[in-house]
Amino acid sequence: MVRELSRLPGIGKRSAERFTFALLKQPAEEALALADAIRDLKQKVRHCSRCFNVTESDPCAICADPRRDQGVILVVEQPGDVATLETTGSYHGVYHVLMGRLAPLEGLGPGELNIQPLLDRVRGGQVREVILGTNPTLEGDGTALYLAQSLEKMGAQVTRLARGLPTGASLDVLSKAVLADAIHGRQGMGR
Amino acid sequence: MVRELSRLPGIGKRSAERFTFALLKQPAEEALALADAIRDLKQKVRHCSRCFNVTESDPCAICADPRRDQGVILVVEQPGDVATLETTGSYHGVYHVLMGRLAPLEGLGPGELNIQPLLDRVRGGQVREVILGTNPTLEGDGTALYLAQSLEKMGAQVTRLARGLPTGASLDVLSKAVLADAIHGRQGMGR
Repeated sequence: MVRELSRLPGIGKRSAERFTFALLKQPAEEALALADAIRDLKQKVRHCSRCFNVTESDPCAICADPRRDQGVILVVEQPGDVATLETTGSYHGVYHVLMGRLAPLEGLGPGELNIQPLLDRVRGGQVREVILGTNPTLEGDGTALYLAQSLEKMGAQVTRLARGLPTGASLDVLSKAVLADAIHGRQGMGR
Repeated sequence: MVRELSRLPGIGKRSAERFTFALLKQPAEEALALADAIRDLKQKVRHCSRCFNVTESDPCAICADPRRDQGVILVVEQPGDVATLETTGSYHGVYHVLMGRLAPLEGLGPGELNIQPLLDRVRGGQVREVILGTNPTLEGDGTALYLAQSLEKMGAQVTRLARGLPTGASLDVLSKAVLADAIHGRQGMGR
């Protein structure tokens, strides 16, 4: 039990032991409810065959929603990024989850990610815009560049999430790279 | 001495006492060198009559530099913001320092800031673009909006520093407001 729990991220041997003793003290039905939840998770949750987000139904609730614009696809690295972006309530298109980013040093090439299915979706011709929403990191940017090159060959309009000053911050706490992005990408007043 | 030192930001009575005892222990010439530096600071450092940045010469080194583009003005709240933006090496225009931001609740209206001198600089007609670089905060944005309205009446092109994802971050640590900005302001791939 301790060994299995220790495989979870951020759980060391001590925490695993604490959890194990807590489960021992719980009434049997509570501990078994957790066991059932884990079994359900693995049996019911799968990836949407269209966007690869995690879902219990296929296609997922976002892909199946007639109010979502199927002509705009926001590409992200992980299912968690979909959940994060949905909290804004600002996006009304659909998603595509790569399940990672290109990381040649770790042996993660285009074949390890859901890139071909994205190209297939765009090739269909119903997609007006692909927004690249990989993380603003070295590997995320590399992945976005690779995707942009592939997608532009197909004639799709490719954009990326804006880079610049994070709302609420103050100039004097931001890095040079953030400030340089904000200068180069300067925008109209947006009114 | 302790009372005078306690007026500095972040210096409490305890720190002020420590500094005072340290000055007492220093050789006289070191303590007097500090006194002279403070006197020099107040006598020599003033505000550039053109951009209001702090300077020992007037106009300041940036305004006087023939390699800087006098046709682009980046408007910031504080002299420290000029120093921060200069570290990027990405900006080749000149600046205008407001010496604050509009804060009606604190009684800071347009008359308390260097706004009229900015309008006068733009009215001259040599300025092609005014970039608003106030902080991405509620009051900074309010100040930018006020300036944009005044400047656009004069026919100047008004932009602002890009708002979006801060380079190097990861989507799952960013606030809703930052993500919504990044979605709304999405950009071309910039290649």
